[in-house]
Amino acid sequence: MVKIGIVGISGYSGGKLLERLLKHPQVKVTYISANNTEGPVAQIWPHLNGLSELVCKKYDPVQAATKADIMFLAVPHTVSMTITPELLKLGKKVIDLSGDYRLPSGEDYKTWYKTDHQDKANLKKAVYGLPELYREDIKKAQLVSNPGCYPTAALLGLLPIITAQTKDIESIAIDAKSGVSGAGRKATLALSFGEVNENFKAYKVLNHQHTPEIDLHLSKVAQKPIEVDFVPHLLPVQDGILETIYVRLSGKVTLEKIHQLYQRFYKTENFVRVLDAGQQVELNYVVGTNFCDISLAVSRSGKLLVVTCAIDNLLKGASGQAIQNMNIMCGFKETEGLL
Amino acid sequence: MVKIGIVGISGYSGGKLLERLLKHPQVKVTYISANNTEGPVAQIWPHLNGLSELVCKKYDPVQAATKADIMFLAVPHTVSMTITPELLKLGKKVIDLSGDYRLPSGEDYKTWYKTDHQDKANLKKAVYGLPELYREDIKKAQLVSNPGCYPTAALLGLLPIITAQTKDIESIAIDAKSGVSGAGRKATLALSFGEVNENFKAYKVLNHQHTPEIDLHLSKVAQKPIEVDFVPHLLPVQDGILETIYVRLSGKVTLEKIHQLYQRFYKTENFVRVLDAGQQVELNYVVGTNFCDISLAVSRSGKLLVVTCAIDNLLKGASGQAIQNMNIMCGFKETEGLL
Amino acid sequence: MVKIGIVGISGYSGGKLLERLLKHPQVKVTYISANNTEGPVAQIWPHLNGLSELVCKKYDPVQAATKADIMFLAVPHTVSMTITPELLKLGKKVIDLSGDYRLPSGEDYKTWYKTDHQDKANLKKAVYGLPELYREDIKKAQLVSNPGCYPTAALLGLLPIITAQTKDIESIAIDAKSGVSGAGRKATLALSFGEVNENFKAYKVLNHQHTPEIDLHLSKVAQKPIEVDFVPHLLPVQDGILETIYVRLSGKVTLEKIHQLYQRFYKTENFVRVLDAGQQVELNYVVGTNFCDISLAVSRSGKLLVVTCAIDNLLKGASGQAIQNMNIMCGFKETEGLL
Amino acid sequence: MVKIGIVGISGYSGGKLLERLLKHPQVKVTYISANNTEGPVAQIWPHLNGLSELVCKKYDPVQAATKADIMFLAVPHTVSMTITPELLKLGKKVIDLSGDYRLPSGEDYKTWYKTDHQDKANLKKAVYGLPELYREDIKKAQLVSNPGCYPTAALLGLLPIITAQTKDIESIAIDAKSGVSGAGRKATLALSFGEVNENFKAYKVLNHQHTPEIDLHLSKVAQKPIEVDFVPHLLPVQDGILETIYVRLSGKVTLEKIHQLYQRFYKTENFVRVLDAGQQVELNYVVGTNFCDISLAVSRSGKLLVVTCAIDNLLKGASGQAIQNMNIMCGFKETEGLL
Repeated sequence: MVKIGIVGISGYSGGKLLERLLKHPQVKVTYISANNTEGPVAQIWPHLNGLSELVCKKYDPVQAATKADIMFLAVPHTVSMTITPELLKLGKKVIDLSGDYRLPSGEDYKTWYKTDHQDKANLKKAVYGLPELYREDIKKAQLVSNPGCYPTAALLGLLPIITAQTKDIESIAIDAKSGVSGAGRKATLALSFGEVNENFKAYKVLNHQHTPEIDLHLSKVAQKPIEVDFVPHLLPVQDGILETIYVRLSGKVTLEKIHQLYQRFYKTENFVRVLDAGQQVELNYVVGTNFCDISLAVSRSGKLLVVTCAIDNLLKGASGQAIQNMNIMCGFKETEGLL
Repeated sequence: MVKIGIVGISGYSGGKLLERLLKHPQVKVTYISANNTEGPVAQIWPHLNGLSELVCKKYDPVQAATKADIMFLAVPHTVSMTITPELLKLGKKVIDLSGDYRLPSGEDYKTWYKTDHQDKANLKKAVYGLPELYREDIKKAQLVSNPGCYPTAALLGLLPIITAQTKDIESIAIDAKSGVSGAGRKATLALSFGEVNENFKAYKVLNHQHTPEIDLHLSKVAQKPIEVDFVPHLLPVQDGILETIYVRLSGKVTLEKIHQLYQRFYKTENFVRVLDAGQQVELNYVVGTNFCDISLAVSRSGKLLVVTCAIDNLLKGASGQAIQNMNIMCGFKETEGLL
Repeated sequence: MVKIGIVGISGYSGGKLLERLLKHPQVKVTYISANNTEGPVAQIWPHLNGLSELVCKKYDPVQAATKADIMFLAVPHTVSMTITPELLKLGKKVIDLSGDYRLPSGEDYKTWYKTDHQDKANLKKAVYGLPELYREDIKKAQLVSNPGCYPTAALLGLLPIITAQTKDIESIAIDAKSGVSGAGRKATLALSFGEVNENFKAYKVLNHQHTPEIDLHLSKVAQKPIEVDFVPHLLPVQDGILETIYVRLSGKVTLEKIHQLYQRFYKTENFVRVLDAGQQVELNYVVGTNFCDISLAVSRSGKLLVVTCAIDNLLKGASGQAIQNMNIMCGFKETEGLL
Repeated sequence: MVKIGIVGISGYSGGKLLERLLKHPQVKVTYISANNTEGPVAQIWPHLNGLSELVCKKYDPVQAATKADIMFLAVPHTVSMTITPELLKLGKKVIDLSGDYRLPSGEDYKTWYKTDHQDKANLKKAVYGLPELYREDIKKAQLVSNPGCYPTAALLGLLPIITAQTKDIESIAIDAKSGVSGAGRKATLALSFGEVNENFKAYKVLNHQHTPEIDLHLSKVAQKPIEVDFVPHLLPVQDGILETIYVRLSGKVTLEKIHQLYQRFYKTENFVRVLDAGQQVELNYVVGTNFCDISLAVSRSGKLLVVTCAIDNLLKGASGQAIQNMNIMCGFKETEGLL
């Protein structure tokens, strides 16, 4: 049994990690912590009452390193980069769910996260934990930077077309809609029931910090600079992301060909389902699972491809993908604990 | 035109007061304030953008008294009692939506609100603003204490049976369910979308501060002490209260007789609708209105009466009733601005 | 008092028409009908209990024509075109909320609505009821075809840029999200709470029957053919539409200039609010009102304009706009009964 | 591996059974059917896409009996009683989730379900599948009648007090609130999003068909007739039941004693959690689990006990409990596939 530590147990992704890892047959959660909440699991997450005797304490690097072999960091950005260096030095493997190690450049970090990066030394060490793209690197990684929820859906929705028709891409607009848990578990008026329920809005229009992650990996795949236009929205649901992606092409495509392309591309992937032509993805199909579902449509002109993809933002978009990465790092079956 | 001031414009009931009073044909809102938010109405309540040029400032008693004749206090309890004395001295009429003047005894206030009352002198002056019970007193009042949302529904649901069969009442249990706006507009984790949505729970079981209000006025009507058992719950909806009231009786009753009793009791009331026998109240029927809907059922034994009543907690349960009280105090048609 | 008839009172837009017209100071609802539901208003819409003594019957053209001067048709498409000819012959004014008279060509109707048009003769007579575009024609119209909910938001969001920069428009993608009431009041599994709640999906991708309406009027304004790419989604809320519109331009624009353009364009309009730069529209701001709110953003490249617009689909997107049209047709103040 | 058949796969409890049984380590689902829907699992339940190759067909008793050893019937009442006799004759074990075998008397069935019972012969054979009460009988049963969702919560909430203080019980009122999935997956206006969302109402007041089940088993335990007053309500959530139970007592009790009583009573139970005194149950704590959570409160008079209990109506209230029963019947660990 691999021994697991989770930092940030009181947030939504930390809680989801705990819930899933408690059932994972090949690991044992041996350390949990959170900064503002201490006490037994049942007090922090009453739905787990009776399922774990673990007690949550303030984060202590020595305790953590003594008790666990792999550390999941489910903490806000800016916190991960203060914890990670010591854990790496102590020889621990780290899977970071924050944004701290997603951008390889400290300058880009400052541009998008509005603060200096405190651990530039380890930025290059971090492997971007999107298994469908970087599986081989993840196997050998000591530090995995788990992708953002929006980029996970965006990249999975775009990889096949980018790979196959790089030259024809004229523009990409991503209209993303996320459930509330994506914003974390916080006491703010903006996330109160009265402001979210029966409401809907765009936010950080063309200005969201997940944008450069998408650009970066699309550009790598395309081997040329790609910039997407990204507009996120807040859905009045708890979990789930659906992205509607508008890919304008210089040449014509047919739905049939594109559908074949996507099916072949993901043929061997466990967690990407390309739906039958004509069927549309729904949040309901993926929430509670680690799947990314993808639907495709092509305009009559043949020059617009509309990709819709859906994931559970806390699973494939965060904790599920983190466990998938752990499975890969540990040589477990990639679906272990996730189906 | 009567000149109106509203204190506490940024909360749900303050906002609702403003929205409704802007359309009231016989009054003009001339003063608005809030403690933590300043600026034009459109900034605080963007849905009112274009409908009012008023600017919200920090509360200032002299400004308020200069600009307005009737003051609505839509502030948290403990705040009203610090504002009210001066306004009364300045000759203003005050309609207080908080709990500060609902209990005539300072000791009871301390018991239920866990703090000393700061304005005991005016407690006796306050008229309890339930028009269906105290209309004549409201006409002459300088200080109206607007009833709590739960007591409004409870009292309207119980007045007829208490009046008619005082002697037979063995026990009363009130199972109340309220939408989230009843808790106010606050940045707390407990009221965040993630904790309320798809959830449901009881709170302050047998221990809610609205209980003594209900007991007090039922006892007055019955001319003997009555104590209800009151259990509130939090519904995952924005607005509305539905109460299911279990009245155990020592003698037998029939649905027909009880239905007649209720219909007669409320025959001349504008805002109480006793539904046809067999029809059940729903939040949908009352939310957005100042109505209280009432349904009735009797057990086969004839010794249990189940009253269900529904109101919009922000209208008949707060701002609507406050306007109804204002209409009565000013000699306007009681339904003015409320249909 | 102008006498009003409403056909299709049991649907969401018929109900909303009734609710609003009952409060309109210059008209009197004198006739209501619905095909599958008969009986007093309070039985069909219990929230209107006590507000109207009208009784709903099966539609009868003679009765309707005798009792009312202006007829609102809030019926499904294919029904309006069987009712309208007779009403027009009887000299009545008709405001049709269905899709039957929105496309001037019978062939286009067949293409998009999959059935033959039964009243081609009156197609040319119909004035498209978007006051901001065709106010003068509406004044003189006998038959007003009320715009679809999606096209209302799309057109209001696009008119200024289309008018000002026709030549620069390269492509337009409209990502639209609608509340459930847009689909009507129906007993279908797809609209059941269990399938909609906590869910989200696209539907009729690039294939919705509202698309040609948008193309038609944009092309008229641009005086050249414009085709938008339109993808609607179903939001888990009752009311409201928010559209995120991606306008790709061949030349560069600045947010400042675009914002000025929009503000000037709608300066004299009562029901279009261009929000301050940086502020984003929300459903909450418009639901329950007849307003269309518009926000603007421009990409760093200056070649992508993102317009977000929000309306209440049942008000500005249906019944509210129908009443606005009635006000114009009758020479009333355009905002009468709508603020 | 025990071979499992599920009849009624397209409903909410049939779907949930399939989802859970596919992951159960000791059984294999070998037969699925539904009456109105045929085709592969992924078409009926897209979230299970990729997890099962099963194909759903119309129910055929011979096929079913050939392929499976234990049959789950997740069909509406009146259907089970036409299927069950043959399956029993063929030697199959049957777990029926409908109401058909819950009442041992055919007359009671007619009274509450308004139709004649078609299989009175097997009524006596059926064991009521509440493990906490009838575990020993379930072990030996060929036909298990899975309890109703409401009775499961009500009985678990009342068993300890009924057992311990039978003589003191004066009256019991159960105020029950259920999510929408309790009503099944149906195309009706009453269950449409537009009628349920942001709404709340009581229904079948004092008249619900689950009432006699509760009375029956409480009376058995008490060894004297007990009749509860039962009022169900419809919550605007998908899953979950919370019941607030008012137990009036002739003698006084203390919270401490009652809390001890409940904790001891359920000490060895896997799926009943008595929360700490002062803590209140919430739907969130139990939805997605097979737990029943219980909280307790006592009035100041000591003569009213308020029990609140919460379950997931589709799990402990239906499919989870059915699997728990299967585990018991098969000699598996009782929690297998359920934690």
